[in-house]
Amino acid sequence: MFESAEIGRTIDKETYDLAVPALREALLEAQYELSQQGRFAVLILINGIEGAGKGETVKLLNEWMDPRLIEVSTFDAPTDEELARPPAWRFWRQLPPKGRMGIFFGNWYSQILQGRVHGRFKDAVMDQSIDTAESLERMLSDEGTLIFKFWFHLSKKQMENRLKSLKDDPLHSWRISPLDWQQSKTYDKFVRYGERVLRRSSRDYAPWYVVEGFDENYRSLTVGKVLLDGLQAALKAQAVQRPHPHSAPLTSSIDNRTLLDSLDMSQALEKSDYKEQLVSEQARLSGLMRDKRMRRHSLVTVFEGNDAAGKGGAIRRVAAALDPRQYRIVPIAAPTEEALAQPYLWRFWRHIPARGKFTVFDRSWYGRVLVERVEGFCSPSDWLRAYGEINDFEEQLTDSGVVLVKFWLAIDKQTQLERFQAREKIPFKRYKITEDDWRNREKWEVYRDAVGDMVDRTSTRIAPWTLVEANNKYFARIKVLRTINEALEAAFAKD
Amino acid sequence: MFESAEIGRTIDKETYDLAVPALREALLEAQYELSQQGRFAVLILINGIEGAGKGETVKLLNEWMDPRLIEVSTFDAPTDEELARPPAWRFWRQLPPKGRMGIFFGNWYSQILQGRVHGRFKDAVMDQSIDTAESLERMLSDEGTLIFKFWFHLSKKQMENRLKSLKDDPLHSWRISPLDWQQSKTYDKFVRYGERVLRRSSRDYAPWYVVEGFDENYRSLTVGKVLLDGLQAALKAQAVQRPHPHSAPLTSSIDNRTLLDSLDMSQALEKSDYKEQLVSEQARLSGLMRDKRMRRHSLVTVFEGNDAAGKGGAIRRVAAALDPRQYRIVPIAAPTEEALAQPYLWRFWRHIPARGKFTVFDRSWYGRVLVERVEGFCSPSDWLRAYGEINDFEEQLTDSGVVLVKFWLAIDKQTQLERFQAREKIPFKRYKITEDDWRNREKWEVYRDAVGDMVDRTSTRIAPWTLVEANNKYFARIKVLRTINEALEAAFAKD
Repeated sequence: MFESAEIGRTIDKETYDLAVPALREALLEAQYELSQQGRFAVLILINGIEGAGKGETVKLLNEWMDPRLIEVSTFDAPTDEELARPPAWRFWRQLPPKGRMGIFFGNWYSQILQGRVHGRFKDAVMDQSIDTAESLERMLSDEGTLIFKFWFHLSKKQMENRLKSLKDDPLHSWRISPLDWQQSKTYDKFVRYGERVLRRSSRDYAPWYVVEGFDENYRSLTVGKVLLDGLQAALKAQAVQRPHPHSAPLTSSIDNRTLLDSLDMSQALEKSDYKEQLVSEQARLSGLMRDKRMRRHSLVTVFEGNDAAGKGGAIRRVAAALDPRQYRIVPIAAPTEEALAQPYLWRFWRHIPARGKFTVFDRSWYGRVLVERVEGFCSPSDWLRAYGEINDFEEQLTDSGVVLVKFWLAIDKQTQLERFQAREKIPFKRYKITEDDWRNREKWEVYRDAVGDMVDRTSTRIAPWTLVEANNKYFARIKVLRTINEALEAAFAKD
Repeated sequence: MFESAEIGRTIDKETYDLAVPALREALLEAQYELSQQGRFAVLILINGIEGAGKGETVKLLNEWMDPRLIEVSTFDAPTDEELARPPAWRFWRQLPPKGRMGIFFGNWYSQILQGRVHGRFKDAVMDQSIDTAESLERMLSDEGTLIFKFWFHLSKKQMENRLKSLKDDPLHSWRISPLDWQQSKTYDKFVRYGERVLRRSSRDYAPWYVVEGFDENYRSLTVGKVLLDGLQAALKAQAVQRPHPHSAPLTSSIDNRTLLDSLDMSQALEKSDYKEQLVSEQARLSGLMRDKRMRRHSLVTVFEGNDAAGKGGAIRRVAAALDPRQYRIVPIAAPTEEALAQPYLWRFWRHIPARGKFTVFDRSWYGRVLVERVEGFCSPSDWLRAYGEINDFEEQLTDSGVVLVKFWLAIDKQTQLERFQAREKIPFKRYKITEDDWRNREKWEVYRDAVGDMVDRTSTRIAPWTLVEANNKYFARIKVLRTINEALEAAFAKD
């Protein structure tokens, strides 16, 4: 879920300096329009990793915009007055009225995360609190509040560097945080529970925006742009739409880079190495599937990827290791009439394997947020809600012992062209290349963005995506097999 | 929450026989239209008290309608196949396709309730499960499923009688239930947790309908009518509306009776008794408010009622017992401009008392579902969602130690007329009677229905409504004082 915010995004000074004046002016204008209209309030929640620039960004927003129309509230230790009343009272008293903006720093999510990291309660109670937060946000949204939730992120390494440099800075040494971020474990727990919070509380009316916080220019422009886009859309809406719809991607990519761009596509294997590793990984998989600990688990693998990325070939190498009675390959094409009469997840639920068994999905439920999104086969609200529905679905699978491994096989545009052309030349492969493939290729960038959003929103600790550099088929097949084997071993080790 | 379904509703045989043929025909027609359109599926969830006629009603629906278009699924002990997969798999495989109806008997709610009653988990885990159920229903609704949730209810006494008579009936003796309903405790727990389930899972797209199950005619007609109304509305909707909106009241009142009709309005107190009891109840309240256990609590009372029911007089008798520094009376009139710029609950949150203190709300947040609903000051979707928001709000109050006591002061129409006329004659009371009062009086029935819905949906174990028979002011004042005192004592006893 945070992968896209750990790729070292930066904006150079020149680009930044060029962009800021227009952004500031537009933000100010939107702010006055907000105040003039007086139709809705804006609430901005600030959360994330220590050192990721939360405070700096809030300071900057106050500089960029008219601070008379913004109220910043921090919620540290509650006052006596607050302690004497229900916990939500302190938030209610600081709510921004219509026409104004409120920034909540250290809000309900901080308290949920601190409580969980400190071990003051377990997941069930955390989920209850998230549910309460969701009800509150839903109600605020229904009552005409436009909500932005920002998660400022740093990779662990980035955070350690940042804390080191802050330590020596007298301007920052006064900071006290209720969590001891110097402890390596704190980061791990915070990110683990943070993911659960984001997964469960990202809704169309109040989505999370994950912002990589390492580079100040990138961070500031991103937050500014997300705010501006959201504000302008809400101001333009003819009627007060309740709840306010957002459709921005989880991770705003103003540097036009996606996670896919950070892959090292040159990775390859020699044929002899491949043959050797193939035999050993297949033997390993075969052994794992026959292991008696497999009786408590089942295995589901999802294969998605660019056209001609080699999904079929990879699946064949997986299947070759196994007894056909153990697995089933489910190819997903356009839904049948029977499937169309049911909720879209229905046809995948049907093929969830029993314990001890293995289902390979050749394409999957992710069609909803890929081809259906790109080709307009469903409405934006349908694919927007699908991220959450898919996360719920996958949580149900993994909760009951399913080991779920999801692959995106990525090739670059040139490699795809070469493979398309090669297929057209080989008679028995010609059926594999159609007009559709060429048409999809023209939408390369649109698909790339859809894949980026998909990974950002559905790569979770319980069901991570594995991006497979597939320009070299040997490399890709071994990575697939090894990833499956490691996932099974990790599941067995946890039993 | 179940009060309205314990008042002994009946429909006589003649009325029933007269109504059924037309209802059946209309249901059949709707069913064929559903099948013809093929735009959405219908899912009916059956839950409630043992012996309340769940099975009989399902059987009857199959007789009334075309059973080829209905699939009834029961979910008792899971099969081997089901046990080998995630828990939701068994529900997914039985989902009705578009154009058809599915009846789920012993669904996810039964499992949640059985688990909680048997003590297999606590509230936090139950809330997680309710949340999962809600996500599933939300998704089904978004995908075009029209959901009806029926809760068949019996009072404890009604249930005991019913179980006794069923025992001797060979047709019913085969029943096995996972709960031992012969135990008095089982009923209490089931109803307590059932209320929590209903409170948390009643949503506009999938509301609960509570049906009093004692009288077969009443029960059958009610279910038939709710289904027919919901079906017809969904069939008529031009576009497929997602999610499907319901706006029916929680408790369908085909016998045109509400909880208010079941009050004994003749209750009265002699002046001398009143004076004596007033002194002692006021002394009791005064003592309770000065009790040191009050430091852990605060007190909130809500006064709603018919115009001229005597709210002001009752409040004065409460206040008279206390030190003015302890309490604050908050009269609620039309919202100020400042309040209008905030979510509607904001102006009530402001006045939530600190521990040890007491706030009297003279009218309250219930204006949303009373005057605002009746006068059209807010949209139906606004007041429909308000029930859930209010329940959430009150849960937050009581969770943090607020003792919440809610009164509806009820007078009959004749008594109101007499008091209006009397007020017009007494110079210093003339300001108390306005054109508005006469106008409201004309809407007596509409208000009565709104009050009925309000009590059904927001009278909860944690914040019950007390209906006060207020034709006799002496009786009403004493009942108010005594109820407050008992609520405080109960809260102290639980500490």
